[in-house]
Amino acid sequence: METRLGRLAQTPRSRTEPPIKPELFVGRLEAQLGKAVGLMQFGVNHLTLEPGSYSSLRHWHEGEDEFLFVLSGEITLIDDHGEHLLAAGDYVGFPAGMANAHHLVNRSSGPTTALVVGTRKQGLETIHYPDDDIGAVTVHRGTDGSRVEN
Amino acid sequence: METRLGRLAQTPRSRTEPPIKPELFVGRLEAQLGKAVGLMQFGVNHLTLEPGSYSSLRHWHEGEDEFLFVLSGEITLIDDHGEHLLAAGDYVGFPAGMANAHHLVNRSSGPTTALVVGTRKQGLETIHYPDDDIGAVTVHRGTDGSRVEN
Repeated sequence: METRLGRLAQTPRSRTEPPIKPELFVGRLEAQLGKAVGLMQFGVNHLTLEPGSYSSLRHWHEGEDEFLFVLSGEITLIDDHGEHLLAAGDYVGFPAGMANAHHLVNRSSGPTTALVVGTRKQGLETIHYPDDDIGAVTVHRGTDGSRVEN
Repeated sequence: METRLGRLAQTPRSRTEPPIKPELFVGRLEAQLGKAVGLMQFGVNHLTLEPGSYSSLRHWHEGEDEFLFVLSGEITLIDDHGEHLLAAGDYVGFPAGMANAHHLVNRSSGPTTALVVGTRKQGLETIHYPDDDIGAVTVHRGTDGSRVEN
């Protein structure tokens, strides 16, 4: 019943340390805003990318919608159709099941920030990574929307 | 398969004209960003409130999570626990089923803007409006996440 407020400056930001191509993510910081205020149905992450950093491996989701809104700076979207430069106020949607693998990279000389929203679908979800050896990965989310380690 | 990009300045903004207390919403403008790029599982709306305007009637959702992130200006959250002043970078979550009715009002002297995210749950959803004669309203969303008029 309590009021669930958060302040961006006081929300922990974590650096991603993935096992694949970790060099792409050195300047990537993420604050999990939705989780901080108890949401389970979708995630809302505040993303900071220092110059040269990527948002993720290039991927698409079978069952979960994704959305990104640029808050500051410039960021380049890379998808099956090439490169698209986005600036503050620009946004992009990735509907579930749209087989158009995407990620974002900061090719500018300053930091960029964005809000990223994604459904947290209970049960099984398959994510495709066409550029990488992992191919497709099936993950499992529990009833609170968190990933369950199998 | 196409790239689904949007630019905030080019996205249509609509003025709400609700049947109840329309005077609260004269300076409320909303751009439906998620819908503009084909998302169906959650909505992402860019909200502008001129001084004195409200976001909605005070309400809470039985089955849908809601989230708000302040982009610029100041905005006052009103819920069961009183008033809470929010500024740029502040955010608030309203988990589904949390019976803490809320809305936001701009009591400042300039406009405020925010991003509002909400689940678009297929099927029936009940929304409670404790301050108004309507009480509780059950709505129906179709498979594309849009409300179906019954």
